Amino acid sequence: MAVSVTAALLIIGDEILTGRTKDKNIGYIAEYLTGIGIDLREVRVVPDVEEEIVAAVNALRHRFTYVFTTGGIGPTHDDITADSLAKAFGVEIDHDPRAVAMLRERYPAHAVNEARMRMARIPKGADLIDNPISKAPGFRIGNVFVMAGVPSIMQVMLDSIAPTLATGAKMISVMIEAEGLAEGHYAEGLAAIAADEPRVSIGSYPSFSAAGFRNQIVVRGKDPAAVEAAEAAVRQLLNRLKGDRSPL
Amino acid sequence: MAVSVTAALLIIGDEILTGRTKDKNIGYIAEYLTGIGIDLREVRVVPDVEEEIVAAVNALRHRFTYVFTTGGIGPTHDDITADSLAKAFGVEIDHDPRAVAMLRERYPAHAVNEARMRMARIPKGADLIDNPISKAPGFRIGNVFVMAGVPSIMQVMLDSIAPTLATGAKMISVMIEAEGLAEGHYAEGLAAIAADEPRVSIGSYPSFSAAGFRNQIVVRGKDPAAVEAAEAAVRQLLNRLKGDRSPL
Repeated sequence: MAVSVTAALLIIGDEILTGRTKDKNIGYIAEYLTGIGIDLREVRVVPDVEEEIVAAVNALRHRFTYVFTTGGIGPTHDDITADSLAKAFGVEIDHDPRAVAMLRERYPAHAVNEARMRMARIPKGADLIDNPISKAPGFRIGNVFVMAGVPSIMQVMLDSIAPTLATGAKMISVMIEAEGLAEGHYAEGLAAIAADEPRVSIGSYPSFSAAGFRNQIVVRGKDPAAVEAAEAAVRQLLNRLKGDRSPL
Repeated sequence: MAVSVTAALLIIGDEILTGRTKDKNIGYIAEYLTGIGIDLREVRVVPDVEEEIVAAVNALRHRFTYVFTTGGIGPTHDDITADSLAKAFGVEIDHDPRAVAMLRERYPAHAVNEARMRMARIPKGADLIDNPISKAPGFRIGNVFVMAGVPSIMQVMLDSIAPTLATGAKMISVMIEAEGLAEGHYAEGLAAIAADEPRVSIGSYPSFSAAGFRNQIVVRGKDPAAVEAAEAAVRQLLNRLKGDRSPL
């Protein structure tokens, strides 16, 4: 049985919940983790409220191999992620000399103020995550990786984290176009295939545009032979249904 | 004190967690609810796994005025939202005569099969939510609204739900461009304004593009006078800082 490495993602920020900022990190991180063999199992979006962040971190970090967070590590008063993480782990938080050095390298002495030094507040025992774009580091504490919310910075942080992560067998995913067949037409046959082959998961995904409905079937699994067998069964089912297709 | 009506959103679907489908519903629903005076307080994305859906529904429905779900109400075996909701509420689930009638209206007799009738499985005591696009209805049970995952269908369902919802005072939101000022430059002043005016929340949002960093400050609140006062204070702060701006 393939080893499974799991993850949760915690998006921190009022701006996502009010709709002001449209999240671009969930899809990116989901695809990235899937690609390196880590199964993203849950995402939460919580506001800039310490008790909500602490509760979510503690709910997630015990259930999954890794937790990734984005947002709330800047210099302003609404950036409370580092303090919340310290609270969640029950550790002290203070200016970290390594982070202070990074920020002093970026800012001239007259521009080093208390607010900027907030970005050097790191929970005790955490490792820093480099931020080549704007210097203020992310950090890892326990199995939780704290990243920036700005997508371009989050992405470089994720690149630097990735080589340090345990990864499991990669998910293999095959997409099969239903080519005009309706979900309700192939659903029974698809359910039988899914029941026959517990090593794969099979999803059916309708989408809708001016051109009408389009259905795509996705077979996912970590065992190449099982995915291949299920894919063949799905194609056979669709071919059979196309042969006797009724107008609807 | 303005009445607060709160909501959580539960996105159901493996395809979001693998990154195959990039979610378009969170941002839309967040903006929509904010616009009608409902505060979205949490979002969760969970896989097509009954126990995960049940746990999330039960965690959220007791904490918020409303819960909205998207996804998992089609005819295929991976569409398990209705059954999961019945389980979460501890009620029976069966073919609902109203939903059966809607589907019979759409499909000719020879196309009515067991899989399509799955879409008429509705928990006992639920009210239906119309689906003018593809007929298969959503439903409301208790304070939970179950909607389709396909964005265009979810959007018409939300339009039909909206007039039935209690709404609170609308959030007023004002955006102020920092016009080149760095977050670390205005953070201390901004924190003081935020501390002075607990009726508003103030966020600072950096974004990054080829043109460099851009910072925007958003003042949000439900009391117009408080928002206006805080906005004036922020503008005054920024003007003062622009006057004595140092190179960084």
